[in-house]
Amino acid sequence: METKKIPDIVVARLPRYLQVLQHMKQEKLVTTNSKVLGDRLGISAAQIRKDLSQFGEFGKQGTGYSVDFLINTLRVILNVTDAWKIVVVGAGDLGHALAHYQGFTNRGFQVSMVFDNDPRLIGKQIGAFTVQDTADLIDKVRAAEIHVAMLTVPASAAQKVAEELVKAGVTAILSYAPIVLNLPHNIQVQYIDPILQLQHMTYYLE
Amino acid sequence: METKKIPDIVVARLPRYLQVLQHMKQEKLVTTNSKVLGDRLGISAAQIRKDLSQFGEFGKQGTGYSVDFLINTLRVILNVTDAWKIVVVGAGDLGHALAHYQGFTNRGFQVSMVFDNDPRLIGKQIGAFTVQDTADLIDKVRAAEIHVAMLTVPASAAQKVAEELVKAGVTAILSYAPIVLNLPHNIQVQYIDPILQLQHMTYYLE
Repeated sequence: METKKIPDIVVARLPRYLQVLQHMKQEKLVTTNSKVLGDRLGISAAQIRKDLSQFGEFGKQGTGYSVDFLINTLRVILNVTDAWKIVVVGAGDLGHALAHYQGFTNRGFQVSMVFDNDPRLIGKQIGAFTVQDTADLIDKVRAAEIHVAMLTVPASAAQKVAEELVKAGVTAILSYAPIVLNLPHNIQVQYIDPILQLQHMTYYLE
Repeated sequence: METKKIPDIVVARLPRYLQVLQHMKQEKLVTTNSKVLGDRLGISAAQIRKDLSQFGEFGKQGTGYSVDFLINTLRVILNVTDAWKIVVVGAGDLGHALAHYQGFTNRGFQVSMVFDNDPRLIGKQIGAFTVQDTADLIDKVRAAEIHVAMLTVPASAAQKVAEELVKAGVTAILSYAPIVLNLPHNIQVQYIDPILQLQHMTYYLE
């Protein structure tokens, strides 16, 4: 693997390539090429060739890419050859959805613990998980060596919980709370806010 | 408003500007500037000035931007001065979360109908909504003149439901199903797949 600095905008596209390739594998496709990938993704073939070339030589002129080889290589690049344990904080509707979500399998993640601070939820069962008390979050997450978190708490609680997660050793947080978290620069943070994507679309609507 | 073509990558950032400005308004801030905005967003001040300049003159040299004026202008640009009605298809955990979500208010959207095809869910109440039968989706969505949809059905059902939504007059779909939808080019489609963002972060983890 090359170690030169890859632009973040390229890194952001790689999971989408992997997603489409895993669909192709389910469809029993053995090879593909940048044109077919591009059509599925709405990205130009030239862009895909350029992105993938940053990581070495994947395809042969005229024969395209091996789906399996490209999947395996992208999994190595994206650091998802094993399953990262995830802690979910917030056991509301969204926390339930994540605890039940089947889509983590084979994509590098597994929910491992679910926390909430609501006494009515602590001790309850969500699928395979018992909701634990956020009072114990730091100790339990640290002991389990969990480094990835999904945050589904209300906006008012998000900053405090995020800081506790960082204390517990979490270095990557995917937050559903609609506020910008203020965390050390070595912590990876991504946000999911459906309204941002809805507003992106309404720009184009009549 | 200028009508020149704005790059989509710029359009994608505008909802984030609006989000942060609305937080500033809640914090009773009256004016701001590109440096402060940039610090909150992790975007350079120069980039923010350049993005906003595409839409005309917002700020005065040295005095910064009026928070209210910038909010109102961005709402006009993003076409969210009124509330778009949203149809949610899929009344599972995620559909529940969306039907209960308080964050749509004042941001240009309101859930208006919830559908599912599961007889155990049809007729059930989720907050203010009665789950309706997807068999009636086309007629009801068309009659209500709803143009924005959120799709929380399983991957196997997503393409079919999306086509029905398009038939009903929907032109913007935010899909949580982990498949790429194949729809006419005039339909806006965005995807939320938490694993894409998790994999983006694990690239940077040790």
